[in-house]
Amino acid sequence: MTLIDRLAAICGAPHVLTGAEAAPYGRDWMGKYVTQPMAVVRPGSVAEVAAVLRLASETGTPVVPMSGNTNLPGGGKAQGALVLSVARLNAAPVINRAARTATVQAGVVLSHLHDAAAAHDLIFPLTFGARGSAMIGGVLSTNAGGSNVVRYGNTRDLCLGVEVVLADGRVMNLMSALHKDNTGYNLRNLVIGAEGTLGVITGAVLKLFPRPRAYATAMVAMASLDAALDLLNRLQAETGGAVEAFEYMPRLYVETHLKVAPNAREPFSVPHDVNILVEVATTRPDLAAVGPDGSVPLVAQLEGVLAGLMDEGAVLDAVVAQNEGQRREMWSRREMAAELMRHFPAEVDTDICLPLDRVTEFLARVLPHVRRIDPNARDFTVAHLGDGNLHYTVLPSHHDGRDEDAIRAAVEDIVQDLGGSFSCGGGRTPWLWMSCGRSSARWTRAIS
Amino acid sequence: MTLIDRLAAICGAPHVLTGAEAAPYGRDWMGKYVTQPMAVVRPGSVAEVAAVLRLASETGTPVVPMSGNTNLPGGGKAQGALVLSVARLNAAPVINRAARTATVQAGVVLSHLHDAAAAHDLIFPLTFGARGSAMIGGVLSTNAGGSNVVRYGNTRDLCLGVEVVLADGRVMNLMSALHKDNTGYNLRNLVIGAEGTLGVITGAVLKLFPRPRAYATAMVAMASLDAALDLLNRLQAETGGAVEAFEYMPRLYVETHLKVAPNAREPFSVPHDVNILVEVATTRPDLAAVGPDGSVPLVAQLEGVLAGLMDEGAVLDAVVAQNEGQRREMWSRREMAAELMRHFPAEVDTDICLPLDRVTEFLARVLPHVRRIDPNARDFTVAHLGDGNLHYTVLPSHHDGRDEDAIRAAVEDIVQDLGGSFSCGGGRTPWLWMSCGRSSARWTRAIS
Repeated sequence: MTLIDRLAAICGAPHVLTGAEAAPYGRDWMGKYVTQPMAVVRPGSVAEVAAVLRLASETGTPVVPMSGNTNLPGGGKAQGALVLSVARLNAAPVINRAARTATVQAGVVLSHLHDAAAAHDLIFPLTFGARGSAMIGGVLSTNAGGSNVVRYGNTRDLCLGVEVVLADGRVMNLMSALHKDNTGYNLRNLVIGAEGTLGVITGAVLKLFPRPRAYATAMVAMASLDAALDLLNRLQAETGGAVEAFEYMPRLYVETHLKVAPNAREPFSVPHDVNILVEVATTRPDLAAVGPDGSVPLVAQLEGVLAGLMDEGAVLDAVVAQNEGQRREMWSRREMAAELMRHFPAEVDTDICLPLDRVTEFLARVLPHVRRIDPNARDFTVAHLGDGNLHYTVLPSHHDGRDEDAIRAAVEDIVQDLGGSFSCGGGRTPWLWMSCGRSSARWTRAIS
Repeated sequence: MTLIDRLAAICGAPHVLTGAEAAPYGRDWMGKYVTQPMAVVRPGSVAEVAAVLRLASETGTPVVPMSGNTNLPGGGKAQGALVLSVARLNAAPVINRAARTATVQAGVVLSHLHDAAAAHDLIFPLTFGARGSAMIGGVLSTNAGGSNVVRYGNTRDLCLGVEVVLADGRVMNLMSALHKDNTGYNLRNLVIGAEGTLGVITGAVLKLFPRPRAYATAMVAMASLDAALDLLNRLQAETGGAVEAFEYMPRLYVETHLKVAPNAREPFSVPHDVNILVEVATTRPDLAAVGPDGSVPLVAQLEGVLAGLMDEGAVLDAVVAQNEGQRREMWSRREMAAELMRHFPAEVDTDICLPLDRVTEFLARVLPHVRRIDPNARDFTVAHLGDGNLHYTVLPSHHDGRDEDAIRAAVEDIVQDLGGSFSCGGGRTPWLWMSCGRSSARWTRAIS
């Protein structure tokens, strides 16, 4: 029997794809990384995942686990490999309302989990632009972040337990629902963020939170990035840690959005360099209660804080959303980031984490350093400023990729000098190092 | 040269202790585990820690790392071993106010870190009764919890980076200050909670938080434990997640406190079975501002929520602290837990984590199960109810330890049946399994 036949015997012939049927699994959404998998297999149960991996181990077949295939920096490259899609592991999430947990399979789409939690008046807070396609398996395997990390943490912080199938087909059941679990070594966090290199995550127990009753959302123009960090700290104190999102968009981001998006509008009457999308939320009935004049106390509270900072000169301008439509408009500008990137003929994209107080220095130093290689390069940034996570992109003047490696190395120089790391964005080296770029060097150096 | 001489050559003779000088390091605070270390070495730098471990590796010398020696379940047992005390690694913590981090050595006493953060109007939130002696190294190595876990998480959640000396003397520098760090495998969380078995933690980067401007603290008598969990969820929603502590003390706890503590008072005018210490806190100036009549809005808010639940019958009685003295009195009752335990002639103590919604079932089932072994056993509980962490103690009727193993096994039966785990409390088996008790069996079974 061929490998394909043996896979079909495990999962059924309709769930083993080859040739043109397999091709979409080897291509990322941006069309930047195009590979041809040997085949795609779509097991329908954990037992089938185990059998597939056991077979792959026995036959020495390379396996690339895949869920929603929304990874942008090449995490799904699968040339000649067997793609193991977990998309059929998509049973309805089991919500435990009292304990505020969701037990979820790896193939569940993130937005479906959002819906399932909402039916119980709860939220799974992690969210990002690709939520309608991204699946839980990939969310966990990449330790995904998103727009709410400043309030709720990364995926790692939201996961209580995982189920993992090891390369030899053994199933490791770490499906704890405990908020503290000191049994043995903490293998859960080793598997999360391992990009599938230690095993295939097939399920998880995730934390849920009470659904906010009201949001207050604003676009704020700041005098500087340092002033923005100060605003964040002030808002956290004034609202009791209620900041749910704190997103930075520089002028070029806003300009590109105006060019690319239909019906896009300037956020302010005059252009500004430091544009922040800030959102606070509350579960408190008193702050969420709509008054007779239609006003919401939480919104008034945000307006009060911003007005105070405007008097001090730290805030240059601010627009507070007065209804859900205005709030959606603010968010849609932010969530178009991936589409905006496609507007440029060439880009060197990175996903960087920095200590919160080094972001300003990074942005001051990195472009001059890159311009030693490409004097006409520009840059394009959008950032989860609240947790020091920047999507930093260099727009090279040559569009043939000639400077890409040197530019990426130059960015890494500054990142490492400031104690930062590449969250993802390598896409050149296989397996885990995809997520580290040149940081694999740092990794080795970490043990001295 | 003897081993002692070689240790003295590394750290200086005054920092190598033997005989009577070494004895205190082999004895726990309760006096329950008394061992005689071969020697104690107290390196004064990371380089000296590395040299000691290298020497121990070369000579096959067993090493027990130790910091504050406040561990109760026997984590410091060191019969015939070399105790490596990190107590001299106690440089003043370096506080980064803008980034809200503290860089701390392993020998820093927890309360000293609290003081250092307070000087910058920040807090390191983790706290527990032994904070005046416990040191950061042990806090990390045991993934300590405490009274504020419900708000800020366990030690693991509060740690951004660690520095670890491996058994062969290599220093692993994982001192990231990043809120998201996806470089390579997550080794930080593997080392945290590993009880020193993977290496000796010598330093860490820890998260700090804004200091609350006001607290509201109450003793609340509930109709049942389930009602208490409902109270927690209601309070979280009503206060916007401001619950900092939610501690359960049953009647026997209160009675024991009345017997043991000087000046102890009943919390309520009549005795109740389910007594909860609840504390909410705010950084918001408006909620913390003291009114002309001396009232604090946060306190009024807590009173309002409790009054509403009293009308519904869920809250039987409640006393809200009106000043810091009353608040300290409430906390001192809770923080005397370890002293109260010493009051009993014999006890089988465990530290258990349960899914939040299984605590009631656990407490209903465990004592009847234990009484199959010892029909006259009683139990004594105090719990961080907000995160499902119970200090559960059986008081056996025989004081000679004859039933201890069987009782512990009986407790573990119920814990495992409910999807819980032993946080610590074994104390019988060496190394890591100290923290797992019989759960090592579960550990093995986890891979099927």
